[in-house]
Amino acid sequence: MKGLVYGGPGVREWKDVPDPVIEKPTDVIVKMEATTICGSDLHVLKGDVPETPAGTVLGHEGVGVVTEVGDGVSGIAVGDRLLLSCMTTCGHCANCRKGLLSHCLGDEGAVGDAWAFGHYINGTQAEYVRVPYAETSSYKIPAGVSDRAAILLSDILPTGFEIGVQNGQVKPGDTVAIIGAGPVGLAAVATAGLQGAAKIISVDLDDNRLARAKEFGATAGVNSGAADWKEQLLAFTDGEGVDVAMEAVGIPPTLQMATEIVRPGGHVANIGVHGKPVEIAMEKLWTKNIGITMGLVNTTSLEMLLNLVAAGKLDVENFVTHEFSFDEFEKAYDVFANAAETKALKVLIH
Amino acid sequence: MKGLVYGGPGVREWKDVPDPVIEKPTDVIVKMEATTICGSDLHVLKGDVPETPAGTVLGHEGVGVVTEVGDGVSGIAVGDRLLLSCMTTCGHCANCRKGLLSHCLGDEGAVGDAWAFGHYINGTQAEYVRVPYAETSSYKIPAGVSDRAAILLSDILPTGFEIGVQNGQVKPGDTVAIIGAGPVGLAAVATAGLQGAAKIISVDLDDNRLARAKEFGATAGVNSGAADWKEQLLAFTDGEGVDVAMEAVGIPPTLQMATEIVRPGGHVANIGVHGKPVEIAMEKLWTKNIGITMGLVNTTSLEMLLNLVAAGKLDVENFVTHEFSFDEFEKAYDVFANAAETKALKVLIH
Amino acid sequence: MKGLVYGGPGVREWKDVPDPVIEKPTDVIVKMEATTICGSDLHVLKGDVPETPAGTVLGHEGVGVVTEVGDGVSGIAVGDRLLLSCMTTCGHCANCRKGLLSHCLGDEGAVGDAWAFGHYINGTQAEYVRVPYAETSSYKIPAGVSDRAAILLSDILPTGFEIGVQNGQVKPGDTVAIIGAGPVGLAAVATAGLQGAAKIISVDLDDNRLARAKEFGATAGVNSGAADWKEQLLAFTDGEGVDVAMEAVGIPPTLQMATEIVRPGGHVANIGVHGKPVEIAMEKLWTKNIGITMGLVNTTSLEMLLNLVAAGKLDVENFVTHEFSFDEFEKAYDVFANAAETKALKVLIH
Amino acid sequence: MKGLVYGGPGVREWKDVPDPVIEKPTDVIVKMEATTICGSDLHVLKGDVPETPAGTVLGHEGVGVVTEVGDGVSGIAVGDRLLLSCMTTCGHCANCRKGLLSHCLGDEGAVGDAWAFGHYINGTQAEYVRVPYAETSSYKIPAGVSDRAAILLSDILPTGFEIGVQNGQVKPGDTVAIIGAGPVGLAAVATAGLQGAAKIISVDLDDNRLARAKEFGATAGVNSGAADWKEQLLAFTDGEGVDVAMEAVGIPPTLQMATEIVRPGGHVANIGVHGKPVEIAMEKLWTKNIGITMGLVNTTSLEMLLNLVAAGKLDVENFVTHEFSFDEFEKAYDVFANAAETKALKVLIH
Repeated sequence: MKGLVYGGPGVREWKDVPDPVIEKPTDVIVKMEATTICGSDLHVLKGDVPETPAGTVLGHEGVGVVTEVGDGVSGIAVGDRLLLSCMTTCGHCANCRKGLLSHCLGDEGAVGDAWAFGHYINGTQAEYVRVPYAETSSYKIPAGVSDRAAILLSDILPTGFEIGVQNGQVKPGDTVAIIGAGPVGLAAVATAGLQGAAKIISVDLDDNRLARAKEFGATAGVNSGAADWKEQLLAFTDGEGVDVAMEAVGIPPTLQMATEIVRPGGHVANIGVHGKPVEIAMEKLWTKNIGITMGLVNTTSLEMLLNLVAAGKLDVENFVTHEFSFDEFEKAYDVFANAAETKALKVLIH
Repeated sequence: MKGLVYGGPGVREWKDVPDPVIEKPTDVIVKMEATTICGSDLHVLKGDVPETPAGTVLGHEGVGVVTEVGDGVSGIAVGDRLLLSCMTTCGHCANCRKGLLSHCLGDEGAVGDAWAFGHYINGTQAEYVRVPYAETSSYKIPAGVSDRAAILLSDILPTGFEIGVQNGQVKPGDTVAIIGAGPVGLAAVATAGLQGAAKIISVDLDDNRLARAKEFGATAGVNSGAADWKEQLLAFTDGEGVDVAMEAVGIPPTLQMATEIVRPGGHVANIGVHGKPVEIAMEKLWTKNIGITMGLVNTTSLEMLLNLVAAGKLDVENFVTHEFSFDEFEKAYDVFANAAETKALKVLIH
Repeated sequence: MKGLVYGGPGVREWKDVPDPVIEKPTDVIVKMEATTICGSDLHVLKGDVPETPAGTVLGHEGVGVVTEVGDGVSGIAVGDRLLLSCMTTCGHCANCRKGLLSHCLGDEGAVGDAWAFGHYINGTQAEYVRVPYAETSSYKIPAGVSDRAAILLSDILPTGFEIGVQNGQVKPGDTVAIIGAGPVGLAAVATAGLQGAAKIISVDLDDNRLARAKEFGATAGVNSGAADWKEQLLAFTDGEGVDVAMEAVGIPPTLQMATEIVRPGGHVANIGVHGKPVEIAMEKLWTKNIGITMGLVNTTSLEMLLNLVAAGKLDVENFVTHEFSFDEFEKAYDVFANAAETKALKVLIH
Repeated sequence: MKGLVYGGPGVREWKDVPDPVIEKPTDVIVKMEATTICGSDLHVLKGDVPETPAGTVLGHEGVGVVTEVGDGVSGIAVGDRLLLSCMTTCGHCANCRKGLLSHCLGDEGAVGDAWAFGHYINGTQAEYVRVPYAETSSYKIPAGVSDRAAILLSDILPTGFEIGVQNGQVKPGDTVAIIGAGPVGLAAVATAGLQGAAKIISVDLDDNRLARAKEFGATAGVNSGAADWKEQLLAFTDGEGVDVAMEAVGIPPTLQMATEIVRPGGHVANIGVHGKPVEIAMEKLWTKNIGITMGLVNTTSLEMLLNLVAAGKLDVENFVTHEFSFDEFEKAYDVFANAAETKALKVLIH
């Protein structure tokens, strides 16, 4: 079969690799119907993720059909159409038992890190993939859910919802600011209404993305390049700040912005992937009765979100801006890597 | 009457001041029976709290008997023995209505800051004090509760419990580390068992304080001056870290320590008063599924804690290490300010 | 002034009564702008509420303008336009302090029962009303909120939301059934989406009301007169039942219906006013991992809901089906009491 | 091997039965070290549980050592000492994924009912047992935990804690009444302190059991045979009732008692196994802001409780009042079935 292989820093190729086989009784093999590219894949390609060996097939999002089932699998059959979770979770370790799936202690990938696909083991950007712990790491797709929609459930929608909306404890009537209108920030925008947010304010440097945010449910946009961005933002509140400030960029200034605009008693939910320490103004914040949360998606909301999509209650197909066939995989990477120009949010490869 | 007056940076005096009078219908006047000194009083005296004008009577903790009642007060009578909350809270602003009492928007002190006594208005280190919003800022003391015990309820016990134990979401079976064994850290130690903590580990540089911590309920102590303090601490866990790490010192290294010893999925509860920004290792922590909380006590747990003390379920009298009469007030300050030598935790002035 | 006076069982009259005066420093006097009639008023009139003395002015909902302010009131001024809560709450008793406002221990009305207006003291169906504990029992109305909308906030919207949606623990993706499409049941329908309900199914014997329910947000309706009503309802689920079943009628069969259609792990939220015991099938339900909740509205959500209405996020004006002037008060009662014929939901008297 | 076999209503025998074998890759075989008898076993024997076929080996509690492991099991090895959960849970169905383990949709036993052992499949009162879904239905026992203690973790301690204490939302400072001082009621007594209960009042008709309750942590006992039992009980409160009332008997009068003694805003947690409907006084309770919960144990707290026992924080060995060898199994049943005379709580067979 063919797969998109990481060949060491800067090197990627859509090329022949061995077909995956059942290695453990809890595995299934899936023929991929559709997959996509995530910012993390770009990180691996740059060489920023040293634990990923050259030769690994990339990708951790995907939709496909089961072609083979391990002996220990009772709930999945050949022919089932599955959504693959970005997290590979054993379902029985101490962390899985308490819902902390992202830190699964199972033995695929690294103990304590459930991001296995395209990180420690071959991933989903391929014609076939071995899915370990299949019964607890995949979901049957209800009838009527398109690839365009389903593909968003592997990672970005649960991430925006769990790490942004749930961690931020958004509640009915809240005013919420989401800093960063990339795919994951927009996933938080799109799901904040599920917990009753009254005002959803997207904050970004790019007016195009702010316009995009409104399509996904933002009630307002603030360009953070404006000298008075903070005043503009606080004008949507009583002046005390927002109930929930989410950070979906991953750099120190944006996390600091979030701590500045949150009201006393509010919540800062970090969604961004950070590469550096961040100086937090504890001398001002210690009195403020806030919490700052952070973490990896557990995908515990995945099934609920999938059902909402199936029921037509969450319209997310427009996250996909470009579509490619598998043999255009490298072109898909070029388009996604140049999102500033191409305006790509998510690219669908199928 | 006499009161302990802040005379500008470095200057304090127990001296004559005018008797307080009812200024608003919701005030009562209390004859102080006992008060104490808090680290914040020392901050004011050093001049670190510029909003406090010279001439202010200090102190925000106390027990006393009502001598006069405003016309708008229906639930308190002359002769009632009251515990004064460190927070002066109107009970009807938007923040009070949602339980965020520490950020009361009432007009005593500063709008949004409920620490009024000894900060914006005359405090409790005096023979008499005016208690604004008395019905929502004081509590009748059940029979049988001594001054030694009651005085701890004005501030430090609710602070340790709310900002440490509740914010830290301590739950049955948890392993909890509390960095800093000063009065507030020990208040967290003393109340962590109320939410079922199984292991309560006190962390401090001073072995005397660690021994003290065990009297208040710590199951172990770790001297953080040891090169292998972290290994010692993690040995109480499965190696992954504690469920809840509380910081009760207020400097960057101890908050950083808390983030290093918390397990994935755990909680960092900052209780300390910070004077500087703190660099947080977001590049490591963003994946860790933790929350970092901080804030001022709302005293919403005060009544429950007071009832536990009255029922003999929370033995806290030993927090008071020294007792003084009112005319020894300046000596009490000397003893408290030199806690390292005097081993003072709380001093009772009565 | 004039008021609608309860003259003993079956007797009501719009007639002259003495003007209210400030009785306590925490009172204000309000000139009524608009009021409405509630099912409870009909109960009082029938003589079912023996604690209400003949001579009482009825009504506990209303909007008006302040004409006089007690000495102990600091946050309300003459001229303020206020929404009156159906609950008269002191704000400082043990119950108020823990958010259980409906069981306020204050001394207006009965200790432990905060429904004072039109029950223990003169109510809001009058030209003027004395509002006790005004600062904690009323809310300033944001600009732009009409009487038609505001009047719903005194009681029915918070009741539907708190006793139905919050007690029922509705969460994103849930399927919710609401039995009874009278005003309070429809208030639950209208607010279930605030907590992310995906399917909102109204259940009633009257197809007109089911059609009405769809206007307020129901996604489906089931006529409970149909022999197969239960099958119809379960067809909206996986066959196991709804996540949340609300009862908004107040008779044994409908509460029993709710327990039959709730799925394992779900919630039954009773909103109805009951006059008789209800036989609960504990022999079947004890294994079902459900909760059955019940209670009076605390109005702790009132301010949030009011802000949502002000922001145009909760369109509720259509709850008002009929409007009358004050001198048509008795006609308003006739229309409301014959809702089956008149199709009245809420009548506005202004 | 030998097992205790249900031979139809009223018939039980310790006799030869075929050895269990691995039937599915997710099974393990365990050689039983210790087991016990539960009230449910008596129900089966009486013929009250028609779904259990004659010929079934009874029992759903137990401790043993693994002798054989299915191919799909990665986390359990031959020789591991396991605690068997009373619930057989697949870990990957929709109910397991949301923590509702007791209603597992897996295919051992009945879909939606996770009580499989001694109910739908052969149970633990035998020399060997097949453990389906072993990785999600058993727990490795930490060193130093005796059979006497461990055996309580299969069912009664998690049941008392989850269905009584957690469902009852016991919180620090609460006054809790537990009606019924049989094994499960006492399990609730023993674990109420984990959530900070200040007063734990055992209510029973038998003074011996009340004395027993004090050994497990009750702070007081009330004999419900006394004419003034209710007054005695309310004397431990402010007169308004207890915060949490648990029912651990399973008959209508005791559940009704619980609803009478709970304070406004409190919780009634039903733990008892009911055989008849219960008339609930909704005409009085609808205003009371209470919840009534019920259900089967999910064993989600099992691991935490096991760790507390291992850490010496939960002293439960005295629940075992009698010990027998396997060949005395029928005698053990006689003793347990006559608990009124024999004062048996739990009998250990090993």
